[in-house]
Order: sequence, then structure tokens, then C-alpha cells
Amino acid sequence: MKKHLGGFCDLGFAKIDTDRINRRGFPEVVFAQGKTLTQLKEIARTFIVSNHPLILTRINQEQYKFLKKIYPKLKLNPLGKIAYLTKNNIKKIGNVLIITAGTSDIPIAEEAAVTLEIMGNNVTRLYDVGVAGVHRVLDKKELLRKANCIIVVAGMEGALASLVSGLVSSPVIGVPTSCGYGANFGGLSSLLTMLNSCSPGVVVVNIDNGFGAGYFASLVNKGQKG
Amino acid sequence: MKKHLGGFCDLGFAKIDTDRINRRGFPEVVFAQGKTLTQLKEIARTFIVSNHPLILTRINQEQYKFLKKIYPKLKLNPLGKIAYLTKNNIKKIGNVLIITAGTSDIPIAEEAAVTLEIMGNNVTRLYDVGVAGVHRVLDKKELLRKANCIIVVAGMEGALASLVSGLVSSPVIGVPTSCGYGANFGGLSSLLTMLNSCSPGVVVVNIDNGFGAGYFASLVNKGQKG
Amino acid sequence: MKKHLGGFCDLGFAKIDTDRINRRGFPEVVFAQGKTLTQLKEIARTFIVSNHPLILTRINQEQYKFLKKIYPKLKLNPLGKIAYLTKNNIKKIGNVLIITAGTSDIPIAEEAAVTLEIMGNNVTRLYDVGVAGVHRVLDKKELLRKANCIIVVAGMEGALASLVSGLVSSPVIGVPTSCGYGANFGGLSSLLTMLNSCSPGVVVVNIDNGFGAGYFASLVNKGQKG
Amino acid sequence: MKKHLGGFCDLGFAKIDTDRINRRGFPEVVFAQGKTLTQLKEIARTFIVSNHPLILTRINQEQYKFLKKIYPKLKLNPLGKIAYLTKNNIKKIGNVLIITAGTSDIPIAEEAAVTLEIMGNNVTRLYDVGVAGVHRVLDKKELLRKANCIIVVAGMEGALASLVSGLVSSPVIGVPTSCGYGANFGGLSSLLTMLNSCSPGVVVVNIDNGFGAGYFASLVNKGQKG
Amino acid sequence: MKKHLGGFCDLGFAKIDTDRINRRGFPEVVFAQGKTLTQLKEIARTFIVSNHPLILTRINQEQYKFLKKIYPKLKLNPLGKIAYLTKNNIKKIGNVLIITAGTSDIPIAEEAAVTLEIMGNNVTRLYDVGVAGVHRVLDKKELLRKANCIIVVAGMEGALASLVSGLVSSPVIGVPTSCGYGANFGGLSSLLTMLNSCSPGVVVVNIDNGFGAGYFASLVNKGQKG
Amino acid sequence: MKKHLGGFCDLGFAKIDTDRINRRGFPEVVFAQGKTLTQLKEIARTFIVSNHPLILTRINQEQYKFLKKIYPKLKLNPLGKIAYLTKNNIKKIGNVLIITAGTSDIPIAEEAAVTLEIMGNNVTRLYDVGVAGVHRVLDKKELLRKANCIIVVAGMEGALASLVSGLVSSPVIGVPTSCGYGANFGGLSSLLTMLNSCSPGVVVVNIDNGFGAGYFASLVNKGQKG
Amino acid sequence: MKKHLGGFCDLGFAKIDTDRINRRGFPEVVFAQGKTLTQLKEIARTFIVSNHPLILTRINQEQYKFLKKIYPKLKLNPLGKIAYLTKNNIKKIGNVLIITAGTSDIPIAEEAAVTLEIMGNNVTRLYDVGVAGVHRVLDKKELLRKANCIIVVAGMEGALASLVSGLVSSPVIGVPTSCGYGANFGGLSSLLTMLNSCSPGVVVVNIDNGFGAGYFASLVNKGQKG
Amino acid sequence: MKKHLGGFCDLGFAKIDTDRINRRGFPEVVFAQGKTLTQLKEIARTFIVSNHPLILTRINQEQYKFLKKIYPKLKLNPLGKIAYLTKNNIKKIGNVLIITAGTSDIPIAEEAAVTLEIMGNNVTRLYDVGVAGVHRVLDKKELLRKANCIIVVAGMEGALASLVSGLVSSPVIGVPTSCGYGANFGGLSSLLTMLNSCSPGVVVVNIDNGFGAGYFASLVNKGQKG
Repeated sequence: MKKHLGGFCDLGFAKIDTDRINRRGFPEVVFAQGKTLTQLKEIARTFIVSNHPLILTRINQEQYKFLKKIYPKLKLNPLGKIAYLTKNNIKKIGNVLIITAGTSDIPIAEEAAVTLEIMGNNVTRLYDVGVAGVHRVLDKKELLRKANCIIVVAGMEGALASLVSGLVSSPVIGVPTSCGYGANFGGLSSLLTMLNSCSPGVVVVNIDNGFGAGYFASLVNKGQKG
Repeated sequence: MKKHLGGFCDLGFAKIDTDRINRRGFPEVVFAQGKTLTQLKEIARTFIVSNHPLILTRINQEQYKFLKKIYPKLKLNPLGKIAYLTKNNIKKIGNVLIITAGTSDIPIAEEAAVTLEIMGNNVTRLYDVGVAGVHRVLDKKELLRKANCIIVVAGMEGALASLVSGLVSSPVIGVPTSCGYGANFGGLSSLLTMLNSCSPGVVVVNIDNGFGAGYFASLVNKGQKG
Repeated sequence: MKKHLGGFCDLGFAKIDTDRINRRGFPEVVFAQGKTLTQLKEIARTFIVSNHPLILTRINQEQYKFLKKIYPKLKLNPLGKIAYLTKNNIKKIGNVLIITAGTSDIPIAEEAAVTLEIMGNNVTRLYDVGVAGVHRVLDKKELLRKANCIIVVAGMEGALASLVSGLVSSPVIGVPTSCGYGANFGGLSSLLTMLNSCSPGVVVVNIDNGFGAGYFASLVNKGQKG
Repeated sequence: MKKHLGGFCDLGFAKIDTDRINRRGFPEVVFAQGKTLTQLKEIARTFIVSNHPLILTRINQEQYKFLKKIYPKLKLNPLGKIAYLTKNNIKKIGNVLIITAGTSDIPIAEEAAVTLEIMGNNVTRLYDVGVAGVHRVLDKKELLRKANCIIVVAGMEGALASLVSGLVSSPVIGVPTSCGYGANFGGLSSLLTMLNSCSPGVVVVNIDNGFGAGYFASLVNKGQKG
Repeated sequence: MKKHLGGFCDLGFAKIDTDRINRRGFPEVVFAQGKTLTQLKEIARTFIVSNHPLILTRINQEQYKFLKKIYPKLKLNPLGKIAYLTKNNIKKIGNVLIITAGTSDIPIAEEAAVTLEIMGNNVTRLYDVGVAGVHRVLDKKELLRKANCIIVVAGMEGALASLVSGLVSSPVIGVPTSCGYGANFGGLSSLLTMLNSCSPGVVVVNIDNGFGAGYFASLVNKGQKG
Repeated sequence: MKKHLGGFCDLGFAKIDTDRINRRGFPEVVFAQGKTLTQLKEIARTFIVSNHPLILTRINQEQYKFLKKIYPKLKLNPLGKIAYLTKNNIKKIGNVLIITAGTSDIPIAEEAAVTLEIMGNNVTRLYDVGVAGVHRVLDKKELLRKANCIIVVAGMEGALASLVSGLVSSPVIGVPTSCGYGANFGGLSSLLTMLNSCSPGVVVVNIDNGFGAGYFASLVNKGQKG
Repeated sequence: MKKHLGGFCDLGFAKIDTDRINRRGFPEVVFAQGKTLTQLKEIARTFIVSNHPLILTRINQEQYKFLKKIYPKLKLNPLGKIAYLTKNNIKKIGNVLIITAGTSDIPIAEEAAVTLEIMGNNVTRLYDVGVAGVHRVLDKKELLRKANCIIVVAGMEGALASLVSGLVSSPVIGVPTSCGYGANFGGLSSLLTMLNSCSPGVVVVNIDNGFGAGYFASLVNKGQKG
Repeated sequence: MKKHLGGFCDLGFAKIDTDRINRRGFPEVVFAQGKTLTQLKEIARTFIVSNHPLILTRINQEQYKFLKKIYPKLKLNPLGKIAYLTKNNIKKIGNVLIITAGTSDIPIAEEAAVTLEIMGNNVTRLYDVGVAGVHRVLDKKELLRKANCIIVVAGMEGALASLVSGLVSSPVIGVPTSCGYGANFGGLSSLLTMLNSCSPGVVVVNIDNGFGAGYFASLVNKGQKG
């Protein structure tokens, strides 16, 4: 019962936004979490048939293996839980720096990193440089200054976003994570920290939303180079 | 007891970050709210003497009148509550669009607008086009598409940020406002709405933080044109 | 120890409200979640013996299979998790439109849909038309306008309810869902969005309460046709 | 700088939704709270010139007196804080019952009542019948049963909405109010009570949102009679 | 390393309050949840040796079976999850009525009931009489009036406590339960409802705290008869 | 438009529950806060005419002076903000002890004390004995043990209720107060403390609800002596 | 009705803990906020008569002027809102460093500073060195390292406590302040930040509790020197 | 890809802060929770090679067994979930007392205790002396007074910290735990209690943060003896 009308493809349970690439410069990305295998199969086919790149975030092992059988070229970033089937030779431009406060924040950072790479951005990673040992990030000022845009991924108290922002002239995107326990309240502490940043130049996305940070950073980075 | 060492000017009660313009490309901006007249006078003098532009956010009438007597050239945007004393002929570039959902959101929008203009950006205003009458914003698609960066200022349910983002390829900065009542909880409803946006390309600043949104938008807009 | 007195049937652990059909026009509906198999068996028998339609919401597979053996005609909507044993030929009237923002909201939408159908209402489904691609819902204005009542089911930022309400003259019932993560806080973001709607004509039920929305919509739709 | 294009009238600081009466069957209503006298004057003129009824909610004494001088026929419901200038002889139909739990809830109830009356509905008032003395509402079963739609306005624990709903076949709209203190948390307790109603047939609007409840009730009541 | 000094018995990991029966009229009751089998064995022995009644709340199957082997006379109320080894012929006095709003609230009600019975109180049970069908509780006014003290156990909106209190002269103890979903927030809605009761004569214990309600009711009931 | 039917007196804006004394053993008490002078005058007359004691809680100076002119015998407890006009020679029985943690909690304690005295209970006051100096309350064990019922009024961390309860065999009613600042969150900290008491025998009323605590304590104290 | 028994002085409305100096090494300190002039006069006299130092926190102008007339030697720190009458020549030892993130945090810092000075500690002040310009605090490493104990006072995102702790071997006491707006929620953001510090060696006191931080720091600093 | 530069060792996914022992007097401690076995192996090797003591908090059985095979001398405190490989003969000094309110708080207390012992402090344990039987802690005043620093670990209402603080002159560190249920909200009640302590001399760490409390207590205790 597929129908292509008015800029979307109607699968009944989903309306694939086939117009998005024209409107927004990048096709729809599929949020795999909670979708059935059958739903994913139908959605995937729609993208492939339309010749759109297929990107699935928050995919689990079972979902990935199922689709991998159908589309053997489907790739996976296991840390970032993103699967994708895109043209091979996309040219990467610019420079986005992704920083984490701790080791536990890396999966969310990788979600951002893969998103950026698929969208054609160069990515630099700087992991585990939280404020408990501030010399680690101060030691990398050169990296900080060379970035067009910086993503800071941090759980617990999330203080790193303000600190980094205070050192650079580029825009900083804060990603609070749910890493921590107790009065962390599932990422609330880090979220509030970043929202209340005393350093201008910081914006925030949802807790654990590496994809959203990567997507936004791509808009900023590519705009600067376009 | 003023001391200029190590990149800041020490007034005792304040350490003016005189190095910021080198490090970040723009000087420190003064948060006037809660500061005494004496403190403001000393801070203002430090900026003037250092030949830095003086910008004061969240300034009230009493504070403005006091400083106006000392610096007659000090200007005020009364809606945005920003006073400034800057060089006259800064060239404005690019294009940032500021949208509000309602009339009550305009003061926060103006805080963003003045910030952008002082920082050298062209600003377009599109006010009172909330989702209760979506044809008002759809009617302005041309404006939306011409912007390098869009700021959406909205209280109550804050739904406008997602909607606008879904129509454009440029980055969207959401500013939740405290306009509303009851289960708005001082802007919490709008804040959560924007953080949970289903549309990639939206980031968020603190509730009522027009200045922060304007500052960040300037980084994006000027990067794109630089 | 069953007793039929004063408008209810006393099973000890439950008092079946046998008077409800007189008082409210529709019999009691059983919330199956958390009830033991023995409790469900006794409750079901009471309904069957009283010649009332038997409807069980939030039923799980084990509960359904157990009752299905006893009452082979018991039907199940597996997505909506509603089992029911009702007269076959109830006439359906009017028109209630059920809209979801995303694919993950469909189970809650189906809970509403089955409730409406059992109560004798025509239902139209329009799924996955969230504000990230607003053209999908604008494309269906005809469907929107033909409905007597509209149910909007949405998680994440829940912005769709306000938008739809702004397009129609019929009443809109918002169902926030717990779909999302991070600052969604189990549906709180969507709930607050809908409660703070800037568009008059929107009311809200509990998070994930598809049954409640369907029940209320039936009252509205049937009133309009009665 | 007024412009009438695309279904709205552009005042710069406001875009009056002149198309709303066609689209939704009722014109835009003005939320006066927080608007300046100048803004209100311009908005009012737009409505009058367009020959639309003018309705202003949450208006304060100063605002009312200012507009009253310009439009001497402007009427005020002082409890409900609604001012209006409408055609005199609108025919009222149907029957909406408005119930309050306490005396302090009456201003919100009156906001709903005036809204309903302006929109052409008959209103019955039943005030101060909270659950601490349930005989008061049970004594009025006749009133309850004659209503097409019932609005229950309650602060504190807000229990009245469920109770009333359990007695009737008509839809019930709950309006939590901020009346109370301590763990009432500005109306949160009453809001949560109504959202968690164990009685199907109850929906909820924002805390203290009498206007929203009245507007929605009008859609239900007039649908039933149309 | 057991030591009996200063009114308690020191087991290292626990200090059994052996003086409590003198001070408070009833011995310490053991909160079994989270304790290891070894800890429970040592604690149980201390009570038995001291000739105190042994009562364990929130005991799970594994814990019960383990202790049952050692103390074959240990009894269990499986719904209320209380195990106890007390003298057989305690005389019961007075009359405490325990009411639940729904069937799912019964386990918490049974925790209260067993506590009361062990402490020597007569208990009457009235289950599943929530406000969605208020005739069920109004039908039992005789039961309500005969009680010295009433415990109302209710989840979801928890409205029953206020209603019952409004009908009687005896004190009412509200026990909010975590039964419900969505905006119930783990029992918060019911807790706030009961705390904000408009009916004087209602007090509240922690969410799901059947034991606490039973204990307090015993103090009230036995005082009245003492 | 006064009507005496069905156990209440209908003033339109209020339905005085004239049956309450029969049903509950004590007449309705008027919550003065937020009521207009006219409303209070009409309500007061209804009570006087019906020969019921008149009790008004949370009354302010203006309200009291207004009613005092009409009823010169009206008395006031200025700390507790309760005005009352009752028969002079009510016999007081039993013994309720009211304890506060600090000096700032006294107004709420006095609200409870006056309520108890009007209802015919002997009251003992023990003020400012919080846990920062626990010897102060331990020094008064004799007072604690002689009470039939104890009310503990405490803001800040509210720890006193648990401590007192652990020393006595009588029931303890905790009244959290809003005294404090910062993470006190308007009394939330004290409320949660008392709800989570590790000492059985503690129940809780709303924040700052001295009246409710006094009312409940009267039921307990008089039951014990009746 | 003053009584000196059992280690306290009973004023009725207050029980002065005269034993505290023996038990805890420092006398009771009076929380002036909310106390009446009469209460303060009686309390002050008790201290003076007992030859104890008199210290009053959160004192307002009216209270201070009233007591100043009676005790002309009473001193005031107007920023910290502490009045005190102590022996002149207390010897100060050790070194406590007090740091603020911003200028607005100074009043809370001064509350801590005066407390420390009265208790006999040397205090060093380092104000306005928040993370937006981290070079300001890094420039003062010498000051940081020389302190026995550091108090960090910060509102907004409160990130400074973790950063400072990561640089030193001395214990850090975080004081979140309510400075900020929007999602600061009265200091909650800063409080959560400090509680979730990724740097070991940080503890936290209540929002705006400068006195508590000063008191605790004195225990640490003097212990180290004792 | 290990690199030792600028005071840290760069493993890519982690930057081990090898400078910390110089800067802070104690090396970095590894938070094992959420780390992979491979990550732990690499991190452990870095510590061993650098001749630093290896300490891992929140380690689970699988992680411990894996590392135990590689480093057979690795020890485990199973209750406190801390594994460590340190020099055997560290001299212990001073005296830190660790108190718990209940038996369920012991695991968190042990986390603090092991931390203290590894850092070279004498520890005294006093478990299960909560305020429900205050004689248990009053009986141990000698222990309280001999401590240089006291850690109070308490869930539920967390009242013990204030009480203990009121008895001693040494500093008290409160550790709220998540033990409890219902309105405990994962430790929030205990956290707020301790933050609002009316007794000066109490500071707080994160919920369940035994390690942080132990670390801070070591700084205090060793300072006092150094």
C-alpha cells in the first residue's frame, strides 16, 4: 500500500519524508529503537529504492543482523549504534572536534562522530579530558583552536562545556549524558549545568543525543566551508 | 586596587577578562542584573579605558540612567534591556532570522537581536507566528530559506522550533521563554519541548536567554560568511 | 461469595460496577495489568453471566491465552493490547480521526482505535505525520476537516496536537506518549507541551492513555451524531 | 505597517489570525496579560475594523479602563477577567454545567462560563460542592444528568472530576486550579489527580485555564446540538 | 560478637532494639528487603532468644523458605509479604476498616491488615470501591461508621481518602500506592492528592507503606479501647 | 438566595455543609484565605444563625477587623491566624503535646494548638527543641510519655518527628513547614523526611497544615478518652 | 519564665543551647531571619548574660538597628548580613581560601568569610574567577596551594568547584548559590553540579548557605593547625 | 598508542592523570562501572607500570575475576565493591568514624571505609544506629567524641547526620543513600534532609557516594594529624 505523493512515501505505519533532501539538504534518518524487524525492512527498502542513503540510529544487534542479511553492504559503528548504507566516496570537509569528559561518554560521542562523517565532515576525537584534570584539555589548545565547531559530551556534572567554550572562538554544542548515579537523575544534572553555562557560545541538545549534536555541527561546519 | 596581569583586570569584586577578545574574538559582556551602581561604574570605566566595546545585558532603568550620566553616548534597547557603547560603523554581514511564537516573547527576541547587531550581523524579525495559526509562518517560507541561521523564541508549548526546523536547511537555535502560566512551570514546558525536538537541527539555550542565542547565532552566521 | 446488591457485584477482591451501563451508557472496562489469572477468570465470568460486553485493556500474552481457552470467541488487538468479547454487529457511526506523530506511537493509537470501534464509532487512522515534516499532515487537510473529533498521539516534544488543532474546528484530544529518551522524562515533555497548547480546543489525557482518549472521543463523536 | 495577506493581519509585533473564523469557526481570542496598552489598542482596532468579535482574557483593571474609554460598549466579567465586545443577540443553545469544588475556584469557573456564553452556549453553575461533603453534589444529580458536557474546576486534591465523571454519561473536562498551599505546588497536585483519573470520560486542561475548558466545552456542546 | 547492653543487642551489622517493647509497647519489626539470608538468620535468632515476637515485612519467597526451615512455625501472608512468629492467642480488640480503591491496591492493604492483626486489632476489609463508582462505598456507610479508624489504600488519583473522610467522624489514614502509569510518577499523584485533602481528618504515610499505616492505626484503635 | 436543603445551606458562591456536625461530630471550618469580605460576612451569618461555632483559619488582619465589628465576641489567635466564636465553657480533656523544632515553626504550631483547644483538648507546648541540640527534647521525656498524641512541627530537615516517635508509644503527627531556604524547596525537604520516617508510628499532613494536624489529633485524643 | 536546666536556657519560644560550647566547641549561632524584634532582644540578652559571643546570621537592617541601640558594640558585615558581638582579640590561625565564580556570589562568600573570621581563622578572598575565563583561577595557583581548605561559591552552572578541586590537595567545600535565572531553578542546577563532581575531594552545603560552609571550613582548618 | 606527555598517559579512550599524585597527593582512582574488560586491562597496566597504586570502585564480579587472573594480588572488598592493589604496609593514622542508620546502608559505608584504609586512615565502624532508637547512638558518645571526622551514611529520611553533628565538635560528612522506597525517590529525601541540616558542621556528598565521602574524610583526618 505504498504511495508516493506530496513529498512523502506512505507505508501506512510510516510516512517516509522523501522531500526532506530537497527541503533540508539531507534525507530522513531512521530512529531504529522500538521498530519491529518488519517495519525496518519496509522502511529500508523505501530508502534503497529511492536511491537515498540509509542511516539508522540506536540500532540493536538483532536489528542490524537482520538488515545485514538483506543489505550485505550495510555498515555498523557498534559503539555509536548507527548502521548506514551510503555512497562510498563522500568528500569530507572542515573540522569538527568531539571531546568527552570521561570514557563512559564515548558511545554518545561516537554517535555524533559517525553522523558527522556520513554527512561529509572531518572529525577529530579528544576523549577523557574532564575537569578533574584540567591540564589534559589545556594541553590540547591547539586542537581546540583549529576546530570550526566543537561538541562536548559530558555526564556527571557536565562542567567541561563551559570550560572549553571559554577557551575558543568557535561555537560549542553540549551533549549532556546520563553517565553518573544518584543526584545525576538520569542526566538532569549535566543538562542543567550546560543550560546555565556562564560562558556565551554554548548550546545544548537532549541528554544522550549524539546524533542531534552531530547533525547540528555538520550544518555549522559545512556552512563555514560552503 | 586595579591590577592588569595575566589577561585580566582585577577590581577585587570582579576580574575583567581583558584577554577574551584575543581568545574568543569578542570582549566580555557585563551581566548587569544584581550589580550595584558602584560596581557598574568601576566595571564600565575598565572597559572604556581598555578601549573595549561596553555591553551590559539585563540592565534596569536606574542602572541605565546612572551610567548614561557618565557616558552620554551609551545607548539602550529598552525591550531587550541591553545598553551598549560601541563604535558606530561596524559593518553588518550575513542574515539571522529571529522568529517569535507570540507577542510576549518579543523582549527576549530583542535581547537576541541587539546582541547580533552589536556583533555585526544583519537581523530579520518575524514576530507572532506561533503554531496556532501555522499559515503565518508557512507564508514566510522565503524569509526562512534566506537565513543563514534562525533563532526561534517561544514560551508556552514551544512547538515552533521543531516546525521551523523541519522547513529549512539552516541551523535553528531554540530559546524557550517563561511566558505562560500553570503547567508551564516558569518555562520548563517550552524547554523540554525544544530539547526533545523530533527534527534534527535544533539546539537550545537557557530559558529567556536571548543574549546567549544571539551570541551563538553570530558565531554561526559570521563563520558562514568569513 | 458473589453478591449482587446496590448496583455492583461483590467478588471480594473486586466490586464489579454492574450499574455502570445504566448510569454512564457503557459498562465497566477491566484494566488487566497486574491482575492474577484467577482474578481475571472470576471477573470475566461475572461480565459474561451478566450479559455485558467484556473488554480488557493492557492485557498480556499469558493473560490472553488463559482467557482465550475459556472464551474461544475472545478477540485481541495485539498492538493495542485490548481483548474483547462483544456482540458482533454493533453499528458504527460518525468519524474519529487518530493521528500519530511517529511510528512508535502506534500501539497507543491502536488502544484508542479499538476502544472507539468497540464503542461503535468509525475510525480513520493517519500515522507518522509529525512536525519534522509538516507537509505530511498539511497534505491531509481533507481528512482533518471531515472528522468530528481528532485524537493526536505524540511522544518526544508532542507539538503535533497544537498544530492540528490550529487547522480544524473540531475538538482535539492529546495523548502524550512515553516515546523518547533523556529529557523526555517518561512522557513528561510531551504532556507539558500539550497542556500548554497555545491553540484553544486541545485537551489532554494521561501519558500513554489511549483507552481514555478513545473513550472520551466516543462520547464526543456519538453526542454529535445522536 | 498593517498588512492583510495570507489570512492574517500583520501589525509587526502581532500577526492577527483573521482567517481563524473560517478555519476554526471562531475568531482569535486575545491573551491580554503582559501586553502593553499600545499593543492592545492596535490589536483591538484590527478586530473592530475586521468586524470580528473582540474578546480579551486575563485582562487587568488598567487595561480594561483604557480600552473602555475607546470602546464604551466593551463589557467585563470582573471575576473571570474577560472583556468582550460582541454582537448582542447571539442565540444560546445546549447546556454546559460548570462545577467548582470550592469558593476559591470560582474566578476560573467564571472565565470558562463567560467564554461559553460568548460562544453561544447555555451555562449552569454549581459552585462549592467538593468531596469533603459529597452529599452536596449527589443532591444535584438531576443537574448533572441534564448537561451535555460538564466542566469541573478544582484545586487542592482535585478529586471532584473523577467523582462527577463516575455519575454521568456526558464528557467531563477537568480544570485543575492553583488554589491551595504547601504540597499543592501551584496546582500540580490537582493536575496530576485529574490526569490519573480512574474514571474514563475525563480530560484535562492546563492549571487555571478556564478559557481553554470553556472553549473546548463549546465545541462539544454545540456539536451535540448542531 | 553479640552484646546486650544499653537496651540493644549488637550484632555488628545490626543493633536490635531490645528496649523498644518497653519504650514503645511493641518490639522492633524487621524490614527484610535487601537483607542477606545470613543476616536474617542472626536477627531472627536474636528475637527468638529474647522471647520477642518475630515479624518480617517485605520478605521474598527465598527469604521466607530459608527461615521457614529453621522456624517451621513461621507463618506468611503471601499478598502482604509479611512473615511472623508470634504467640497464638493474642486477643483482638476494636475495629479498623481497610478500604482499597482498586484490586491492584490489595497487596498494600494486606500488609496493613496483617500488621494490625498481629498487633491485636480486629480488621474489616472493603476492597475495590474507588470513586469511579461511588455508590459502592456509599452502600457501605454502616461499615464506615462502625470503624474506630479507617485506612484508605489508593493509587492512581487517590481521591478515595478525602471522600471517605467526608463521610465519617473517625480518623482516616491514607496510603498512596504506586499503582498506575504515566503521570502517576510512581505514586506521586496519589501522594499529593492525599496530602492536599480538603477534608480535615486525613493523614498520610509513605507510598506503598501498608505496614506504617497498620502500625499507626493500631495505636489509634487500641488507644480508643484501652 | 439562601436555601437549606439536603444537609447544606446554599449561598450560591458557597454551600455550607450544615450536616457536617451530625456526620462528622464537628461543624465545617472556614478557610478564610482568598475569600472576600462580603463572602465572609454571609458565611459567618449562616453559622451564627444555625447556632454553630464559627471558626476561620488563615484569616488576615483586614478580614478579622471587618468581622470583629459585626461580631464583637469574635476572638483571634494572632500567631495561629485563627478567629473563632464558640461557647465559652467547653470542657477540655486528654493531653496533646505540640513540639516544634525551631522558633520559626511556632505559628504553624499555634494553628494546631488553637484548633485543638476549640475542639476541647488539653494542649501542652514544647517549642524549639530541634535535633541540633537533642538534649533539649531528651530532657522532657516525661512530657513526651504523658501525651496521648504528639504533633511535631518542623521545617528545614524535619528530623524531629522520627526522633520523637522513637521515644514514645503514642502516635506522632508530623507537620512539615516551609521554614528554611535553598534546597528546602518550600517545605519539600521536611515533607519527604517525615514521609520516609524509619520509625513506625509517624503520619504526615500537608506542609504548614497546622489546622489539619490539630483536627486529626483531636480525633485521636478524644477517642482515647471517650 | 527563663529557666537554666539540663544544658539549655528556656525562653518558652526558644531553648538556647547553652551547653553547645562544651559539646561542640562553639556556641549557638542565631538565625535572625523571621524572628521578631522582641524575640531577638530576649535571645540576645541570654547570650550576653551567659557571657557567650553573640552572632546573628541573615539579619536585616531593621533588626540590626534595633539591637544596635541596645548593644552599641554590635558589629555588622552588611554584605554577609551577619551581626556579632565578640571578644576583640581572637587570634586567627591557618588559612581558608574563599573563591567565587562571579560578582553576584560575593554576599554568600562574605557570609562564609565573616563566620570564619569570628571563629578565629585567616581568610583569603579570590572573587570572580569563573570558568568562562579559566586563566583567572589558573593564574592564582599559588593561592590555591597555600590554603588548608577552600570554599567555592558559585551559581549558574557551578562548575568551578570541580575545577578547583582538581588542582589542589586540600578539601573543597562547594556552596551553590541561587544566582542565575531560567533553568537555574533557584540554585538547583549549581547544587546538582557540585553533588555530581567528577573530582574527589568536593563536598556540598545547602544553596546560599555561606554560614554552613564557613563553619565547616573552620572545623577543618583549625583541626589541621590544632 | 600510549603517550606520556603533559602529565597524563593517553590511551585514546582514556587519559590517565599520572600527574595527579603530585598535584593532589593521591593518584587517580578508576570508576570501573560501565568500562569494558579490555579498557580495564589497559588502564590497570598503565597504573602498574607507572608504579601507582591501583584502585577500582564499583567493580562487578566479572570485572574483578578478569583482573584477578592478571594481577593475582588484587584484593577485593566485596561489600564496598572496591578492588585494589597497593603497597602492603601503609601506616594508618588518625581516626574516622563511619556510622550507618541501617543495615542496608552498610555497602556504601564499606565503600567509604575501604577508601579510607587504602589512603592510610584508621576507621571505626558503628552500624545500624538510626534515630528510631536513638539510645543506640547516644550509648556510643565516647566513640563519637574520639573521632577526628565522622561519616554518617543514611537512607530513608537521613535524619542521623544532623543528630550526630549536634553531639560532637568534629566535622560530619553526610552520605545519603538510595535505601528506601516510595517518596524516597531514589535517595532524594535523604539528600534534601542532609542539605537542610539545622546543625552547623554537616556537609553532603552525592547519593550512594561512599568513595567521595571516604576520600574527603581522609583529607580532613590526615590534615589534622599531619
